[in-house]
Amino acid sequence: MLQIQTIFQLLPQSLSRHIADNPFKRTLRKLSAIRMMTFMFLSAGCLEAGTQTESSVSILDFGVKPGSGQDATPAIRQAIEECRAKGIKRLVLPAGQYDMWPDRAAEMQIFVSNNDSGLKRIGFPLVGVDGLEIDGSGASILFHGPMVPFFISDSQDITIRNLAFDFVRPIHSEGKVLAITPESVDVEFSEEFPFEIRNGVLVFTGPKPSPEATTTVKTGEVIYPYGNLLAFDAEKRETAYMAKDRYGLSEGVHAKEIGKRQARLFVDRVTAEPGDILVFGPNRDYPGIIIEDSKNVLLEKVDIHHCGGMGVIAQRSADVFVHKVNVVPPEGSERVLSITADATHFVNMTGKIELVDCVFENQKDDATNVHGLYARVTRRIAPDEIEVKLVHPQQFGVDFIKPGMRLELTKGPTLEPLGYAIAKEVTRINSEYTLVKTEAPMPKEFVEGDAVADADANTAEVLIKNCIIAKNRARGILLGSRGKMVIEGNTFHTPGAAILFEGDARYWYEQAGVRDVVIRNNVFDNCNFGVWGNSVIQVGTGMDKEARKTSAYNKNIVIEDNLFRVFDSIPLLNIYAVDGLKFRNNRLERTSAYPARQKSTPEMFVVEGCANLQLEKPTEVAK
Amino acid sequence: MLQIQTIFQLLPQSLSRHIADNPFKRTLRKLSAIRMMTFMFLSAGCLEAGTQTESSVSILDFGVKPGSGQDATPAIRQAIEECRAKGIKRLVLPAGQYDMWPDRAAEMQIFVSNNDSGLKRIGFPLVGVDGLEIDGSGASILFHGPMVPFFISDSQDITIRNLAFDFVRPIHSEGKVLAITPESVDVEFSEEFPFEIRNGVLVFTGPKPSPEATTTVKTGEVIYPYGNLLAFDAEKRETAYMAKDRYGLSEGVHAKEIGKRQARLFVDRVTAEPGDILVFGPNRDYPGIIIEDSKNVLLEKVDIHHCGGMGVIAQRSADVFVHKVNVVPPEGSERVLSITADATHFVNMTGKIELVDCVFENQKDDATNVHGLYARVTRRIAPDEIEVKLVHPQQFGVDFIKPGMRLELTKGPTLEPLGYAIAKEVTRINSEYTLVKTEAPMPKEFVEGDAVADADANTAEVLIKNCIIAKNRARGILLGSRGKMVIEGNTFHTPGAAILFEGDARYWYEQAGVRDVVIRNNVFDNCNFGVWGNSVIQVGTGMDKEARKTSAYNKNIVIEDNLFRVFDSIPLLNIYAVDGLKFRNNRLERTSAYPARQKSTPEMFVVEGCANLQLEKPTEVAK
Repeated sequence: MLQIQTIFQLLPQSLSRHIADNPFKRTLRKLSAIRMMTFMFLSAGCLEAGTQTESSVSILDFGVKPGSGQDATPAIRQAIEECRAKGIKRLVLPAGQYDMWPDRAAEMQIFVSNNDSGLKRIGFPLVGVDGLEIDGSGASILFHGPMVPFFISDSQDITIRNLAFDFVRPIHSEGKVLAITPESVDVEFSEEFPFEIRNGVLVFTGPKPSPEATTTVKTGEVIYPYGNLLAFDAEKRETAYMAKDRYGLSEGVHAKEIGKRQARLFVDRVTAEPGDILVFGPNRDYPGIIIEDSKNVLLEKVDIHHCGGMGVIAQRSADVFVHKVNVVPPEGSERVLSITADATHFVNMTGKIELVDCVFENQKDDATNVHGLYARVTRRIAPDEIEVKLVHPQQFGVDFIKPGMRLELTKGPTLEPLGYAIAKEVTRINSEYTLVKTEAPMPKEFVEGDAVADADANTAEVLIKNCIIAKNRARGILLGSRGKMVIEGNTFHTPGAAILFEGDARYWYEQAGVRDVVIRNNVFDNCNFGVWGNSVIQVGTGMDKEARKTSAYNKNIVIEDNLFRVFDSIPLLNIYAVDGLKFRNNRLERTSAYPARQKSTPEMFVVEGCANLQLEKPTEVAK
Repeated sequence: MLQIQTIFQLLPQSLSRHIADNPFKRTLRKLSAIRMMTFMFLSAGCLEAGTQTESSVSILDFGVKPGSGQDATPAIRQAIEECRAKGIKRLVLPAGQYDMWPDRAAEMQIFVSNNDSGLKRIGFPLVGVDGLEIDGSGASILFHGPMVPFFISDSQDITIRNLAFDFVRPIHSEGKVLAITPESVDVEFSEEFPFEIRNGVLVFTGPKPSPEATTTVKTGEVIYPYGNLLAFDAEKRETAYMAKDRYGLSEGVHAKEIGKRQARLFVDRVTAEPGDILVFGPNRDYPGIIIEDSKNVLLEKVDIHHCGGMGVIAQRSADVFVHKVNVVPPEGSERVLSITADATHFVNMTGKIELVDCVFENQKDDATNVHGLYARVTRRIAPDEIEVKLVHPQQFGVDFIKPGMRLELTKGPTLEPLGYAIAKEVTRINSEYTLVKTEAPMPKEFVEGDAVADADANTAEVLIKNCIIAKNRARGILLGSRGKMVIEGNTFHTPGAAILFEGDARYWYEQAGVRDVVIRNNVFDNCNFGVWGNSVIQVGTGMDKEARKTSAYNKNIVIEDNLFRVFDSIPLLNIYAVDGLKFRNNRLERTSAYPARQKSTPEMFVVEGCANLQLEKPTEVAK
């Protein structure tokens, strides 16, 4: 078997980001060249680097047999490295099950937006790869410990197709509600979710927990943390009607055993009914497929049955195609949750984004969110210098400001544009703070509390077509790209708003502000059966109340030829800060799918401020 | 004020380690040159790099005034960077108090032996510095959040003198025991240790905890974790007589409020008396002074009042001098704990180590431990190839095997030497696993479960002289260097063994095996009032029982001219696996400082196996 010296050991992943960020490209191109040279030099002893050009290799050649139960991780790492080094364009995994453990997996410090940063073990590390298709032939991959399945960084022309992945012990936990009071909830856990009550505290463990530590050395035991609770309806297999998130549990909850695999949890304010499935939400440490600083990535026929973060998270990349990707619990599983955060998420993207023929079900957050990043101005140091901060802890380290970049200057409280500045010198202090000098002085009214964004990112053209988006927590899709966005032929059955226009520079720090959106031929099937929204299509842009009246943050939205199935008098549209919206030729069907809300809103359209609206009442249709 | 582009933003710290580890030095020297070039290029716009040679600068020149309460962190970072870039050899902090916050501190991924790895904020980042004295003129530095005070990496000729540091909110917590039962302990906390009972769980917080999270975004609140308990005697201000560590609390403990700042903790098996101070031990995330891959470092007149890890931890370095360093709680403080782990600790060192005129008191582990690292053989791949693993989680990432290195091959269960091998190719898989090819085949009997060490590290000459080592948890000094070690003129008052000879390749994976030790003119003042040992001077080498009889792992120890003050019939010496030990001309004074142990051992010397012993009974002396 080949023993490959990989570049990963020598140059930590974070370097590639630092290279990308660097003001002085010439110096860094040299560094990059050295990096590649180093790799080739290291590889020379064991590989005929670059001399062969086989078109395809099989993982079988690396000593792994599907279904054998052996740890496929080292072989997969070596196979990817061989493809990269020799320019082989296709890696085939014959059908069958592959088992992967984190022990011998590649490891990198990863900062990934809207997920949790850290030193991660990685199943398929694709770093600096130029052209590779991984074809799973229908294979299923089972991960045996917390890790990131796929990490695509600094790469281009990557395809991943025909495979499914799951985790033997999900990163989150689930249990069935036996009884509930205002102060406690009784829960029964299946063997899929091992737990202990340790010193009176509920602790989720791995399949075979180690014995209690008896020295200062850590046990190496894997603990599965939780921070929040949410009830799912066990029959409908969707978030329970009007169930609320119960946050604030990151430090654990007091519990006592009340029966075999049964515990009473002393947590107040849980909204659930006996029979519901309570989901214990973890951190977002293990997204499924991370794409960063890459170009032209196709994910096709990939089933993401589980991961401990977002399913697909792409940042600072161009052209990402997600076709026939299904985020769903595995067939035959009793789990109500697929993955623990958004099905997909796109940050500071350019080029194209396509979500076509996908199923996004039962994930613990939105189906997608396409946005940019705002950094907050924390100090106005000089006319041409500011200190900025990434504010949302899950944006720490997701650096995006580079010398030469055109920065969009934005008033924080109103999101009002203040023009542009060109970054000249960028000095990173740490994963939170950066100093930025600009070519010319910035406007005087641009002050602490305002925000900057990359003016030329978050411009991807977006196509979301023929997808099923259902039974997940929260909303359907959050649209914030400034490129043309077409949303057509999808079916939404979401507990919150099906479509949300967000963007703010005071809480999430997600840059949005659409320019051209068409929402056409979709079915909105009894959405809003939960607490995450006040209408089927909604503006949630964060700005001062006064600004809402005049802001044109969101522009040119067309909503046509859709079918709205609603179970009570929820507004179809609740908007502000919009300039240009046509709502036309839509149909409305009334259902009795759920009980009516306690407080209903008779208006079909709720409008505050806004300009150039053309709102036609939908045609009422029978079932 | 100067705005300095620092190398830290471009080349993560881990790179320097990777450079150090690399087999192909020529390529990496290029990389190193580029690194420096990059720095100079970046600095050129703002600094006249290398052209000035002022002999000394003051932190005042960087806009910081002692006592002002302002955040000195950015100025200190800039001052160090200016010294480095311009070759300035002295940085002065005029006397007074400096406040430092982690917010704008440098940040690096640090793997540091026997402490916890991670992405750390750093107060004084000294990376790649060639010659710098930081003179605090008696200044005190107060850290306002979790961070590493000093990080010295890839540097040489560094002096830090005349300063003290402390943390406004200690990383650990302490509380006074009000009452205790076999199932619970009632504790009162002073305002120095803010806490909450959250969902029935004891949670230590920062000075101003944020309100409970209400969204999926983290609060940014700083939590102060704990994992174990240990009682201290409030009057004697040392670990309580025979108190035991209570481990296994990392996931929290159930608690309820029983009065103002009083809580009942439902933890069983705590050994404490009402009136004792219970110390809640944290992880070792924030050592005080980290030294790695460096040469010639002098710490002089430094008071380490607190840090959340070891006080001084040095690894893969040469010539570290610790003179007049005091690890003690700050004057006037009610805290019984100084720092949360060993006062000092030295791993894979060469050259000289000196601990002279120091006070190491009240730290939550040994005063020092000088040892090497063993990596465990996890796979014997070929006659000339093995896979090895760093086993202790706090050794993960502390890579030490480099191409060209002479490896010591050791039988794991017996620590029997099996000869040497020269590493030829070293492939790091991740922070745990590494593949090693050797120049020649290794012996057949060298198999899985055996261990390798750097045969030429852990050879430092050690001088420990005129130090006071008292009132800490566990032992005094752990001696494992293979260089000449002289321990003289010290006073020990430790609850465990004053001096321990360890080393094992099955649990701690610390390479030891002394060759030449002189223990002379010390006072062993009523040691062994706690549970961490069975004699004043002890061998604790980890090996199979059978091997103890014949092993010569520890060699040539002379113990002479010491005074042993003992309060009952504890052995002075309990040894095995020793070849050559002289115990001569020592004195014994009997005291009544503590109650006698429940089970006493009449023998003065307990010996198993061993060869070439010369044991003279000590002369009994009156007080």
